[in-house]
Amino acid sequence: MLVHKSSGESGEDRLIAKYFRPLATHPGAFELIDDCAALSLPARRELVLKTDAIVGGVHFFADDPADKIAQKALRVNLSDLAAKGAKPVGFLLSLALTSPIDHKWLAAFARGLRKDADAFGCPLLGGDTDRTPGPVTVSISIVGTVPRGTMVLRSGARAGQRVCVTGTIGDAAIGLLLRRDAGAAERWKLRPAHGKHLLARYLVPQPRNTAAEAVRLHAAAAMDVSDGLAGDLAKLCRASGVCAEIDIERIPLSQAARSAIACDPALIETALTCGDDYEILCTVEPQKLAAFRAATKKAGVAVTEIGEVVKPPKDGAPGARFLGRAGKSLVFKKPAFSHF
Amino acid sequence: MLVHKSSGESGEDRLIAKYFRPLATHPGAFELIDDCAALSLPARRELVLKTDAIVGGVHFFADDPADKIAQKALRVNLSDLAAKGAKPVGFLLSLALTSPIDHKWLAAFARGLRKDADAFGCPLLGGDTDRTPGPVTVSISIVGTVPRGTMVLRSGARAGQRVCVTGTIGDAAIGLLLRRDAGAAERWKLRPAHGKHLLARYLVPQPRNTAAEAVRLHAAAAMDVSDGLAGDLAKLCRASGVCAEIDIERIPLSQAARSAIACDPALIETALTCGDDYEILCTVEPQKLAAFRAATKKAGVAVTEIGEVVKPPKDGAPGARFLGRAGKSLVFKKPAFSHF
Repeated sequence: MLVHKSSGESGEDRLIAKYFRPLATHPGAFELIDDCAALSLPARRELVLKTDAIVGGVHFFADDPADKIAQKALRVNLSDLAAKGAKPVGFLLSLALTSPIDHKWLAAFARGLRKDADAFGCPLLGGDTDRTPGPVTVSISIVGTVPRGTMVLRSGARAGQRVCVTGTIGDAAIGLLLRRDAGAAERWKLRPAHGKHLLARYLVPQPRNTAAEAVRLHAAAAMDVSDGLAGDLAKLCRASGVCAEIDIERIPLSQAARSAIACDPALIETALTCGDDYEILCTVEPQKLAAFRAATKKAGVAVTEIGEVVKPPKDGAPGARFLGRAGKSLVFKKPAFSHF
Repeated sequence: MLVHKSSGESGEDRLIAKYFRPLATHPGAFELIDDCAALSLPARRELVLKTDAIVGGVHFFADDPADKIAQKALRVNLSDLAAKGAKPVGFLLSLALTSPIDHKWLAAFARGLRKDADAFGCPLLGGDTDRTPGPVTVSISIVGTVPRGTMVLRSGARAGQRVCVTGTIGDAAIGLLLRRDAGAAERWKLRPAHGKHLLARYLVPQPRNTAAEAVRLHAAAAMDVSDGLAGDLAKLCRASGVCAEIDIERIPLSQAARSAIACDPALIETALTCGDDYEILCTVEPQKLAAFRAATKKAGVAVTEIGEVVKPPKDGAPGARFLGRAGKSLVFKKPAFSHF
């Protein structure tokens, strides 16, 4: 006897089909109809894998535009691939949403995600949606590839190499302060365009994926700057067993950051230690610098040499040393952003 | 002038080193010292990728033992690989924790995760820890491999194939009711061992990875049962454009589930629609059944034939039909678990 025919799709199925299937353009994603994605690698390439999550109230504000939240979630992962010299293949999305679903929010989220999936050539491979009683949490795992054995590690820095960084440092960290306290714009005497620049840099980072191949071919060690230049450089130094001497004056700052720091010099610490830059920090052999500069220029990414890799002092630990203006002592209270 | 030396590790670095580095036994994980993992595939194999998260208060109880929460998080992903016929390679962990850190909890979590990473041959490849103001959220992305082109899809079911399922169905769903209402044990006249069995099946699923190769070699279509047999079978049918006729009497139930259902017949709906089974549902050509049975028996996994794949009726939609005892009509209110 026929007692039941369950041919109806669930709410979750419909949600995935409506918002996320259009992003699953990779053939191995099976239009999200299957449980898993299947992926073949081209010959002689290896995978580069990374996961990074962003949490409402921690990495973004609950009232940030949903499309920007989606872009940030993908871009913080794209940034890791860029720093490793890897080419994006696609990503897995694990999305925890509050119930009931805000369809307008979700449509904007999917739109932002699609925009960047297209722009960075990084389609959705698979995903999972869950309900959460907590804040929206977007966890992405990204898949990239490099020719076998060519992923740029943190551990390749050696004495004599130059320390380079892309773009500008500190915008997002200062932008976050501004996001929390709009009155700061007046105290820092910021022009409206500068305030806007800082806020935008916090809201949506600009990962340097166009420079990934230049990094892969020319850098000896690299990582992306996500927890602040000071702490991240220290990590790279520890991984490599070296020290780095940085000339604070050479650290690239935007006009906006420069203006804010001119009014409140303590902001230099914010700029160097609070993170969210998503720039590439790398070390390059001196004889490769010219080629690296040429390749990044071609990629449309500014690169600045900010210091040098040196041997650690006898009985001294690896780490980063920041050399400031004569007579002006800068001591970081907390060298890196840390959740705990 | 030397103004700062930031050689100290952050709290987050120490936490990762202490609890998670011991799990990162894969050489491509670089002991979690790098941002990304690097992974080469053996020749002629392709990747199988999946992400699944579990959220406190939704997929587990906040006071569940931390080692069991970790095991559940990994196993729900391992279960997907099993159903696709894939062999685990490793996983990425994105862990959102409340602050301050409960080190005792975290040590137990890492212990449980390591136990299963070892047991299933699935080491940690990389991870991300974040603070959350919400419940603990564990998002895992798992990586497996199959020989190229052999991932078992949902879409391979064809009329004439037999529908099979591993293990027993409904234990976890009934176990969840029991977890919420201990008094149910008395109403259902459950023996203590039966109550314990049902609770254990909810707390930590038993993915059928030992049967993965049997599924890959003999099944035409497969998926794991995570949202309830009724709804998941309907999904498989829709993906394949077929119908399935299931004999409810043949659906494998544990003694414990049988006892509970005998006292409260409405629990059959719970058993078939509420999910968390993490058994493999698959369809097999009749001439391959004997070999499939032999292979799963060798793998120590029970398999039951519960019905048949048939063509959809003219002008009828694909879906699953459940044939019950004569005269007894069973209508599911909600055929599958859905978050939304």
